[in-house]
Amino acid sequence: MQKDQSLTKFFEHIRIHCLPNLSIDVVIFGFHDDRLKILLQRFFNSDHFVLLGGYIEKEENLHDSAVRILKERTGLDQIYLEQYYTFGDTDRLKTDLLQKVSRKSGADLPDEFLHSSRTISICYYSLVDYTKVKPMAGPFSMESIWFDIENLPPLLFDHEAMIQKAMQTLQSDLDRKLNGFNLMGETFTMADLQKLYEAVLQKKLVRTNFQRKMLSLGILERLEKQYTGKAHKAPYLYRFRVAR
Amino acid sequence: MQKDQSLTKFFEHIRIHCLPNLSIDVVIFGFHDDRLKILLQRFFNSDHFVLLGGYIEKEENLHDSAVRILKERTGLDQIYLEQYYTFGDTDRLKTDLLQKVSRKSGADLPDEFLHSSRTISICYYSLVDYTKVKPMAGPFSMESIWFDIENLPPLLFDHEAMIQKAMQTLQSDLDRKLNGFNLMGETFTMADLQKLYEAVLQKKLVRTNFQRKMLSLGILERLEKQYTGKAHKAPYLYRFRVAR
Repeated sequence: MQKDQSLTKFFEHIRIHCLPNLSIDVVIFGFHDDRLKILLQRFFNSDHFVLLGGYIEKEENLHDSAVRILKERTGLDQIYLEQYYTFGDTDRLKTDLLQKVSRKSGADLPDEFLHSSRTISICYYSLVDYTKVKPMAGPFSMESIWFDIENLPPLLFDHEAMIQKAMQTLQSDLDRKLNGFNLMGETFTMADLQKLYEAVLQKKLVRTNFQRKMLSLGILERLEKQYTGKAHKAPYLYRFRVAR
Repeated sequence: MQKDQSLTKFFEHIRIHCLPNLSIDVVIFGFHDDRLKILLQRFFNSDHFVLLGGYIEKEENLHDSAVRILKERTGLDQIYLEQYYTFGDTDRLKTDLLQKVSRKSGADLPDEFLHSSRTISICYYSLVDYTKVKPMAGPFSMESIWFDIENLPPLLFDHEAMIQKAMQTLQSDLDRKLNGFNLMGETFTMADLQKLYEAVLQKKLVRTNFQRKMLSLGILERLEKQYTGKAHKAPYLYRFRVAR
């Protein structure tokens, strides 16, 4: 069987221009219809999925590399992107499963990838406006799909552990980094904000407690109510204070 | 001039057994006499210091590698060790300064180290019992010294940025991870605990507020006062609740 020329060229490019034994993976969170979602790409035409990722060029700063990979795969730049953990177990690629899935899906991967030597992967997470993402094809996939965080498909490698750790990080960072996430639009109601928290924390919150806690963080600015003619019960709108 | 044989052998070992372009650095915090300290090693006989670190063996899990390096350099194992960030700027080794300091101190380093190719360093921090550490010589240093966090010596590479980031992480993790840090002995007073917080946060805290906050975390168990004959004003002792 003829080797896939574009894949062969891709791996040749990586070998020449990128650092060996290293990769970057990005957990891309989106918030839409009150639900937290993750962007995954199908691994060839298998029923397994992987995070979006790539390799670090030899002359490229680590963070710049993550920014480039995110842009190449989603069209987005200038968005919140945070490194959260580096994964480096020797068996993290789970090559038995990789080989099985590759064979089954007819993926024509080079041997050095299938019996992959050691790769340590530096992980980032990103929160993006779901509606602005243009998922693009990667070297291993023509298809990217948003999945509900509560209903993920089978994943390759250690990508399930990567997602779990990203969720934990997001949950514990939410108060401190809410402002930077840019998930809420210019103005929003307290109820909108509560829905975001509930989606991220994966539990229901009590409205009065939530409101008290949010106001105590000192990051919200309440806007004056505008007379609209009908909305005597319209909720207050908030926006984030500008950081000084 | 004859090359230093032990250094030559060390770099040969690294080349054969370790992953290229990667290293591990560990920020070792100690708490003693109400002060937060960091263990650093002198770079040869220069007046510059570096964090304790090492390299990742090809068949070694990333975390195991950090544990091994910490043990080799301090004699400690089974202690709290947490990965917090991976540093990968292309100019992070600041080779101009490295070359100047090496020349001045007569260090006989191989060229490939001095003009070092790209190295990405995965950083851990650790909190240790200051009194139990036995600092050991490393390949670049015969001398490790505890420095006050507020009074650090000149550092090589990007190790100052690594320490800053470790401090930020420690400060924001303190409530959640206090129990695991094992810095407080079996039992302690609220005043002992406040001193730890003040050393880490680098500011004075109000006693009543601090006590209220600590108790609200739900991680402390107050012990019954024992009649000692004299201590009608003896403070309560606390210990950490056992995690279930």
